[in-house]
Amino acid sequence: MTANSLIEKAKLASGDINRAGTSLKNQALERLAALLEANAAEILAANEQDLEHGAANGLAIGLQDRLRLTTERIASLASAVREIIALADPVGEIVSGRTLHNGLKISQVRVPFGVIGMIYEARPNVTIDIAALAIKSGNALVLRGGSAAEKTNAVLIRLVRRALDDFGISPDVIQSVDEFGRDGAKAIMMARGLVDVLIPRGSANLIKTVVEESKVPVIETGDGIVHIYVDESADLDKAIPIIINSKTQRPSVCNSLETLLVHKDVASELLPKLNEALLSEDVVVHADETASGLMSGATMAQESDWATEYLALELSVRVVDGIDQALDHIARYSTKHTESILTEDLGTAERFLAEVDAAVVMVNSSTRFTDGGEFGFGAEVGISTQKLHARGPMGLSVLTSTKWLVRGNGQVRG
Amino acid sequence: MTANSLIEKAKLASGDINRAGTSLKNQALERLAALLEANAAEILAANEQDLEHGAANGLAIGLQDRLRLTTERIASLASAVREIIALADPVGEIVSGRTLHNGLKISQVRVPFGVIGMIYEARPNVTIDIAALAIKSGNALVLRGGSAAEKTNAVLIRLVRRALDDFGISPDVIQSVDEFGRDGAKAIMMARGLVDVLIPRGSANLIKTVVEESKVPVIETGDGIVHIYVDESADLDKAIPIIINSKTQRPSVCNSLETLLVHKDVASELLPKLNEALLSEDVVVHADETASGLMSGATMAQESDWATEYLALELSVRVVDGIDQALDHIARYSTKHTESILTEDLGTAERFLAEVDAAVVMVNSSTRFTDGGEFGFGAEVGISTQKLHARGPMGLSVLTSTKWLVRGNGQVRG
Repeated sequence: MTANSLIEKAKLASGDINRAGTSLKNQALERLAALLEANAAEILAANEQDLEHGAANGLAIGLQDRLRLTTERIASLASAVREIIALADPVGEIVSGRTLHNGLKISQVRVPFGVIGMIYEARPNVTIDIAALAIKSGNALVLRGGSAAEKTNAVLIRLVRRALDDFGISPDVIQSVDEFGRDGAKAIMMARGLVDVLIPRGSANLIKTVVEESKVPVIETGDGIVHIYVDESADLDKAIPIIINSKTQRPSVCNSLETLLVHKDVASELLPKLNEALLSEDVVVHADETASGLMSGATMAQESDWATEYLALELSVRVVDGIDQALDHIARYSTKHTESILTEDLGTAERFLAEVDAAVVMVNSSTRFTDGGEFGFGAEVGISTQKLHARGPMGLSVLTSTKWLVRGNGQVRG
Repeated sequence: MTANSLIEKAKLASGDINRAGTSLKNQALERLAALLEANAAEILAANEQDLEHGAANGLAIGLQDRLRLTTERIASLASAVREIIALADPVGEIVSGRTLHNGLKISQVRVPFGVIGMIYEARPNVTIDIAALAIKSGNALVLRGGSAAEKTNAVLIRLVRRALDDFGISPDVIQSVDEFGRDGAKAIMMARGLVDVLIPRGSANLIKTVVEESKVPVIETGDGIVHIYVDESADLDKAIPIIINSKTQRPSVCNSLETLLVHKDVASELLPKLNEALLSEDVVVHADETASGLMSGATMAQESDWATEYLALELSVRVVDGIDQALDHIARYSTKHTESILTEDLGTAERFLAEVDAAVVMVNSSTRFTDGGEFGFGAEVGISTQKLHARGPMGLSVLTSTKWLVRGNGQVRG
């Protein structure tokens, strides 16, 4: 058995799930949620083995925490599956359509991609999330998870397969190539014609490798060097809560603030007050020369700070001459994820919205709102920082393609 | 000057065209149309040089014909540009939007990709088509045309640059890397971060190379091994005109019929009559054993015929037991471009529409209708056979991405 033969099995079985109706898919998902709850002990035992192996091999504490499952976390896995059951099935949605002058009726209909590949790191919740999203959107799935979560994932994938099998859907619809290690990941990346789309999730490094090496089309979920620019016209009473929320509400995620740009005319009023608020939240500040003078305790920003995604309680601060310099800074360092301006001037707001090239561009809003749940998508597949196919928070429909149906009664082209 | 520095120039200049308004873009396009007409003599002289060089180097007659420009063909280039002026500008279209429970107003708006790359073969009309489409959709453009059309393309690109310059848009928005030959093509394929999307047009071989080697996301416009399946329930009076139209109306293009599958119960009635019609159109028939007995003059089909896109007056014919065998044959040999069934049975029609995995799936229609113009898109960028981003005939909006605009008044996430 090679990794490629497992991928071929997923492709062969994919028709089963591609054509399954909404009701059958939802029944299998409900079974999966029940199986997760009923088999919590087995899942926890496997997870304990992974954790012991991780601790013995010096896995970072943060990663150990991401890897750890508890009874409560298993319960949330099951509720995440039930939330996906509640979503509308994207398959079969008519996206557009018309009757042509010659009487041909054309309609563009959502269809599953076929087979989705995913390469990700040691987070067992991703295994269940993507499996449930794939089933709901009618796709087969080939997974390569991090080796640190291998035993946990093996149990979870077995439960997914059992849930499918219980409703007459081939369990081969879900495949793991974990046993082949890096060769498994490589096999997915090379499986053009078998795997229709590949989604990497994890470190910037993992995503970069996949984007560069994959022959299969990739949906890139990227890192966020996220900026807020405080314009001279900003309402400073709104500014501090927005900045604190953007930086501290969940600093480890991609939509949290990394660099603050402040107009020189409001710096001396804003920065000392902001500094107090940041200090009380234990945020380390890397400030440019002007900002340093206004923010006691700040360290001096290095050139490299502007290009760093801290994902931690650290913030770069730069004082700029105005919107032109802010736009230049953002164009140079942005990873095109989320950028926000604080301003009360309509023209400045509209210029920022028009000129910033990013997946999400905001006015007077915390950057933490770049999120599928917050956007009302119900479930989130990730946040795309590429421009092809999907950009920004991605809902379930991102896991579908379309096909055109043409209904005629003998039309020929003149 | 390297190919990469030209690509960087296009990227630097791209803001000029990304932010140009509809009226400015249309004025530049009208100037381009006028310049093509006013400079016909210079274009023809350059084209003559390319043709002489091609003839001396044994360029195939078909390719010489595609390369050749005439006064009439230059007039059609100018009218093609004017047709693009008449299209709606996709940039700025609001694709979706809503107000969230917290008062944030989110809207998803079409924006230009930024920089488009194109690698194509010796067809000077493609140069003007894609330049006009790129300008209209607000994109910068990097071109690598076939070396056979190098002198013609150089003149055409000079005229495009002049038209932009006349309206204060940087001419660097359009770049050709032809002078670097294959290295130019390679530079475009490697320019991840500079070029946002790459569209190859030309032979199956050229497209395959680009798809396999490009680090830039590709929109694949593929070849078509197009099938018609004549079901036992088909109206045979409709069948012959549809088959003849699909095969002969323009055999050199990707939506023309290559393989006919016929239900065994109607083969003896359909095939002799069809054979007469095919013979009178000079179509060479490659038939399986059963079909051969019913089609005088047919040669015996080889296994390789089922996998061949003839792009010529040749047709493969196979008699099948029924729809299951037809679906199996199509699943095996289809390039997922266009597939059509001829049937009067509703259930069979719906099953074919649901189960065939192709960009366009038809009932009782000539396959020649898979076309952006016929679908009402006004202009056609090509026909995508991939599933990501675009599938089937592509209109102008395929050259755009979207971004999300978020308008708030101080919202923070709880």
